[in-house]
Amino acid sequence: MDGFFKPSRRAFLRGGAAMAAGGAAGAVAAESAPDPLITELQDWASYTGVGVDEVPYGMPIEFESHVVRRNVEWLTASPISSINFTPIHALEGTITPQGCAFERHHSGAISLRKEDYRLMINGLVERPLVFSYADLERFPRETHVYFCECAANTGMEWAGAQLNGAQFTHGMIHNMEYTGIPLRALLREAGADMSSDKWVYVEGADASSNGRSIPMEKALDDVLVAFKANGEALRLEHGYPVRLVVPGWEGNMWVKWLRRIEVLDRAVESREETSKYTDVLEDGTARKWTWVMDAKSVITSPSPQMPIPHGPGPLVISGLAWSGHGRIARVDVSRDGGITWEAARLGRQGDSKALTRFYLDIDWDGAPMLLQARAMDETGYVQPTKEQLREVRGENSVYHNNCIQTWYVNAEGIAENVETS
Amino acid sequence: MDGFFKPSRRAFLRGGAAMAAGGAAGAVAAESAPDPLITELQDWASYTGVGVDEVPYGMPIEFESHVVRRNVEWLTASPISSINFTPIHALEGTITPQGCAFERHHSGAISLRKEDYRLMINGLVERPLVFSYADLERFPRETHVYFCECAANTGMEWAGAQLNGAQFTHGMIHNMEYTGIPLRALLREAGADMSSDKWVYVEGADASSNGRSIPMEKALDDVLVAFKANGEALRLEHGYPVRLVVPGWEGNMWVKWLRRIEVLDRAVESREETSKYTDVLEDGTARKWTWVMDAKSVITSPSPQMPIPHGPGPLVISGLAWSGHGRIARVDVSRDGGITWEAARLGRQGDSKALTRFYLDIDWDGAPMLLQARAMDETGYVQPTKEQLREVRGENSVYHNNCIQTWYVNAEGIAENVETS
Repeated sequence: MDGFFKPSRRAFLRGGAAMAAGGAAGAVAAESAPDPLITELQDWASYTGVGVDEVPYGMPIEFESHVVRRNVEWLTASPISSINFTPIHALEGTITPQGCAFERHHSGAISLRKEDYRLMINGLVERPLVFSYADLERFPRETHVYFCECAANTGMEWAGAQLNGAQFTHGMIHNMEYTGIPLRALLREAGADMSSDKWVYVEGADASSNGRSIPMEKALDDVLVAFKANGEALRLEHGYPVRLVVPGWEGNMWVKWLRRIEVLDRAVESREETSKYTDVLEDGTARKWTWVMDAKSVITSPSPQMPIPHGPGPLVISGLAWSGHGRIARVDVSRDGGITWEAARLGRQGDSKALTRFYLDIDWDGAPMLLQARAMDETGYVQPTKEQLREVRGENSVYHNNCIQTWYVNAEGIAENVETS
Repeated sequence: MDGFFKPSRRAFLRGGAAMAAGGAAGAVAAESAPDPLITELQDWASYTGVGVDEVPYGMPIEFESHVVRRNVEWLTASPISSINFTPIHALEGTITPQGCAFERHHSGAISLRKEDYRLMINGLVERPLVFSYADLERFPRETHVYFCECAANTGMEWAGAQLNGAQFTHGMIHNMEYTGIPLRALLREAGADMSSDKWVYVEGADASSNGRSIPMEKALDDVLVAFKANGEALRLEHGYPVRLVVPGWEGNMWVKWLRRIEVLDRAVESREETSKYTDVLEDGTARKWTWVMDAKSVITSPSPQMPIPHGPGPLVISGLAWSGHGRIARVDVSRDGGITWEAARLGRQGDSKALTRFYLDIDWDGAPMLLQARAMDETGYVQPTKEQLREVRGENSVYHNNCIQTWYVNAEGIAENVETS
């Protein structure tokens, strides 16, 4: 890293006179002028700042008010069925704060007190049971970090490059540390028939109920009946007080305000798993039970909402990768639209079925780039190109688009959502 | 787990008529009466809930308004020098949300825009440098989860059991996923003298400046110049836009609003490392350079702020353990004040120098307990008892108390901070 910054962008303190770094792009001129932010006493170094005793729960600082969830109006015309997007372009690391974590509801977010919460388990069980929230707190709990991705994330890309920002193309995802009870513990408590051909049907307490069928094998594996995210209670919009966590599987199955679990000998084939959340193919037939979110990645910076704020020289390319099948094994980055690839540096290696941060630290020559990232998971699965995906899946679906994303970055550092071919 | 709940606390659905779980403690009576929360259609299942499009950044739900930072008035009389405590008793998992993460300031939290931010490196360097925030964004960055603990955490315990709650005895700690630049990269950029007998002196931009000396070996190891926590920008009170992260070392060294790094051939012996943050012993002499936070643990639930809300039967004992020397290898829990110990289950194994969650799932017989937890880290260090610690350190210090904490839990489930022996 010695000499990482080129001399023209260095700011020296010569002979005791301070000179400004002056921002990365236009530092040459600034080098000759003293920077009052260094040479003069600043206000904030001479007064007493604010006490925060009266801020029992802090919010982001006012200067970061752009780092918020957003929606796309033409995508979410109905006030009932709604979605918003995580500002992944502006975040770093892997954890998503609850406050800006995307959320989708089908009939509005309901306000349900812990005291009024009940969870019923019925169907093929020896002992139909109803649990209060206090009951759930008495079961052994587990904590894991998992990503939650809407099946429709990147869905608009089937029809071409329409949404100009990583927040909108890939922001239907969040990554939180969930604490909850393994679903298998509650099924055992009820004496459920756990044979491998059985299913559980899970329902929310909201008007939509958003019912989904889950095969017993998954229900017994890693599904959590969760009540905390990133240490604290689930927020209103994330299903307070209890939601299902179905690691690696599409977000629609992570039923919020969880109210009922029925053990069945067949899938229900509910609205949410027939007319919705199935992948319509070119010939009009549909793939169903496409639960697992395949390996995927996206470069979050630079991206259309995050232009390069400086000229040529050192540039951090940063992005996220994930797989519903397990850990991310490798991420490659291309600067020429997929002709040549470089291995990215995995930042904090995420847990299984959790986001992994990756970086490519380059010395940008200032030439336009066609930036792409390509994830590989621990099963050896490699994220496909948009062309490869369209070849087998057509363009009729809105779900399960895990194609390689392309950002065109021009010489001014402005990025745009484009397609190669 | 089969039969985990005793029959008296089970809620059955008999012959189609729903019966309530009725809360864990008083379920027997409730079993014979139908529970309208199950048998009747609820309001929230028949109306459209709220849309959250107009909530770009969400806050905790109103029912959780007790999960907030708190202070102890008699500890923090001055409006200038202040501290507050993380509600660790009410959190789960390992991540602390920024909004309720404890913070300490010495002259108030200052409001500093990224545009006005400068970081100077001077002293024994070939090239004194000034970095703008934009400059910092061009360096390769890393992401790690680390705990930050105030040296004075648990400090009131030296003089006996005074503060009745885990939030107050152990809440000067948080655990966040930090993203930043290794300090060694900036030192290299400046051509710093990195020989092992050198020091760096770090200062904040606030009026207190809170200067601290750090030996070169640590500066080159894992110290980060950090700008994100849990994915998003540092909040006002956590040093926006840039703070130092000194993994495993006392929180006072994690200088906020970082403005200057000077390379020196000696320690400065500043106020914050002489009259403060040194450990006064029985004979009036003081231990200094006691930077590392030794292995420690605390049971967060049950605890004085978190009584057991039910009678005998299944009970989750939950707590946190950490070590400034690395990973937590083992945690033991005692129910009889340290006479006998059981190995706790490590929940999510934390990263090195990060919080680890532990659990002991018991069948409580309803008898009073003297609850203790004892952490061991990967170096083999075992958390001492309060008696052991007092024997070598006396009772004059307010810093570096990592003793085993005792909660007395009575037959009603009420917990109290006590001392054994």
